[in-house]
Amino acid sequence: MLYAVIPAGGSGTRLWPLSRAGNPKFLHDLTGSSATLLQATVTRLGPLSPPEMTYVVTGVAHAAAVARQLPELPEDNIVVEPSPRDSCAAIGLAAAIIDRRDPGAVMGAFAADHLIADEKAFQETVAAAVEGAQTGRLMTVGIRPTHPETGYGYIHVDRTGTVTEFCEKPEYERAVSYVDSGDYLWNAGMFVWRVDAFLAELKRQQPDLHAGLRRIAAAWDTGEREQVLGEVWPGLTKISVDYAVMEGAAAAGKVGTVPGDFGWNDIGDFHTLGDLLPGDEAGNVVLGEAKNTALHNTERVVVVPRSGRLVAAVGVHDLIIVDTDDAVLVVPRDRAQDVKKIVDALKESGAADYV
Amino acid sequence: MLYAVIPAGGSGTRLWPLSRAGNPKFLHDLTGSSATLLQATVTRLGPLSPPEMTYVVTGVAHAAAVARQLPELPEDNIVVEPSPRDSCAAIGLAAAIIDRRDPGAVMGAFAADHLIADEKAFQETVAAAVEGAQTGRLMTVGIRPTHPETGYGYIHVDRTGTVTEFCEKPEYERAVSYVDSGDYLWNAGMFVWRVDAFLAELKRQQPDLHAGLRRIAAAWDTGEREQVLGEVWPGLTKISVDYAVMEGAAAAGKVGTVPGDFGWNDIGDFHTLGDLLPGDEAGNVVLGEAKNTALHNTERVVVVPRSGRLVAAVGVHDLIIVDTDDAVLVVPRDRAQDVKKIVDALKESGAADYV
Repeated sequence: MLYAVIPAGGSGTRLWPLSRAGNPKFLHDLTGSSATLLQATVTRLGPLSPPEMTYVVTGVAHAAAVARQLPELPEDNIVVEPSPRDSCAAIGLAAAIIDRRDPGAVMGAFAADHLIADEKAFQETVAAAVEGAQTGRLMTVGIRPTHPETGYGYIHVDRTGTVTEFCEKPEYERAVSYVDSGDYLWNAGMFVWRVDAFLAELKRQQPDLHAGLRRIAAAWDTGEREQVLGEVWPGLTKISVDYAVMEGAAAAGKVGTVPGDFGWNDIGDFHTLGDLLPGDEAGNVVLGEAKNTALHNTERVVVVPRSGRLVAAVGVHDLIIVDTDDAVLVVPRDRAQDVKKIVDALKESGAADYV
Repeated sequence: MLYAVIPAGGSGTRLWPLSRAGNPKFLHDLTGSSATLLQATVTRLGPLSPPEMTYVVTGVAHAAAVARQLPELPEDNIVVEPSPRDSCAAIGLAAAIIDRRDPGAVMGAFAADHLIADEKAFQETVAAAVEGAQTGRLMTVGIRPTHPETGYGYIHVDRTGTVTEFCEKPEYERAVSYVDSGDYLWNAGMFVWRVDAFLAELKRQQPDLHAGLRRIAAAWDTGEREQVLGEVWPGLTKISVDYAVMEGAAAAGKVGTVPGDFGWNDIGDFHTLGDLLPGDEAGNVVLGEAKNTALHNTERVVVVPRSGRLVAAVGVHDLIIVDTDDAVLVVPRDRAQDVKKIVDALKESGAADYV
């Protein structure tokens, strides 16, 4: 058994205009199943973490939706951040709360918006990581790369299974050399550790952030939660857990890994989503009501009809077409990552309504 | 029709140890009905405000509970404050959001934890206040006092129905003179106004607070809600709406009132609660399972058995006995208001777990 901590933040900008900051991808059913990505994440972790041991960390904008999508979770396990402070504060707060409620327990951190094809293999991999964590190491679940993907970070593993380095998203040629070497895994952002071991590393590397999170956790189960959160949270360092803790812990030889082969995908963009979902004989994928589309002589298009309007396409291929109430997106599949640039440009131009 | 805004904050310290900051009175069924005080408040306002026009403003600690207790409310109507900033920020934020979604609409602010006996009379009184608000006045619902209560604030009304003054909780003799004069009403903290009229008064009297709330409201329905809230909210002035707006508006002749006679009670303490609820022939009131109490020769005691233990009392009268899992309270009914002092002392001594 482990405590599952699910940070549910971020907006999934590469899935704009379907995913918005106000309606982020983890709250969506993106794959045509009846569960949202967040619900599927909790279900997948169920055999390892019962609801009492499952925590979601989310922001003020989505607290109500999270509470309703996961009615089986105790209210005290829905941790609401006053403002976005990146992943180290989010995951660290959960760790500090759990350490008070159950000192020395093992927790895992799992993104709310990933897809996993083989749930059993996933559960076995995590169970192996729990064993590793019990020795005091900070464990990651690394994904054996299937191709030289430039959209993911990598981790370098030595022959003993110790992680020596966390690597940024590489250029293509470097990605090829990573995959060819056999010494690199994709960094899926899944971590498993004893909360005391993690907090000790946090204290060593980020003493101020550690002190702030401990102060909040001490007030959490008292009547002063909101006061102390209001005082301490805005001053916490905004930093990812990779930068804040994992890189330094790897350099100190404290990070282990369990490689996983379970069909992992972070559904980063519509192109990837199109690859994941079944299409027609020409490879066209409709994410929504097929009756709202009219496709003639199209190949490998990804169509997302969500406004009720008819989306018609003729003679195009490898194209993404997303239709929502207030925005339509058309982009080639090989430029799918660039959707983020449109969102950034909209923000800068003050058109935040569309973001 | 009006927008109903329900600030659901505060812990109800005079109902400690039943009501805690972590489990405040509005989330409780205090009266033995099947609905919590918050749910009863929304139901009572139902004929005036459908769910789409009902807003609850609450803190990070209770967002999940509020979302689950009120499944009929749209998620966008559950406004989560990053930290407690008193009633003017809470009510003002709702007003600013509503003003963007429906400019010039009429809203009312109603506490989440009041009891009202005559719902029809309440609804008629509020409807009359809505009419007054449409002229641009800031309306209050005042309660015709039934006795010289020192636990409530009062409002002074002139012969035209204009409120000239908001008065602090009075000493007993002053309370008697207020009631005798016939010119004073209890201030029940219920306000009805056009959002634009309220925001104009807020701008006149509290320009910085007004500017901050407008900035947040402009970002509310965009992807930047959490960022802007995180930046602006911690710097907002912490002040009640009475001090910030209503007193100054009354001095400027802009406040009207509709007197109400609908059996209003704010359930401030266990003594009041004992008066409201039916008792046995000796006036004893049990709030909870009667089988968990053994009362012999007691009169007018209020017993709250909530731990499952047996609460036995012999030969006492006019006493409050509250038994919870981690705290037992015994206090005479005429000292019921002083429970707040225990809570303050617990906070100061660092025993925040009990608060």
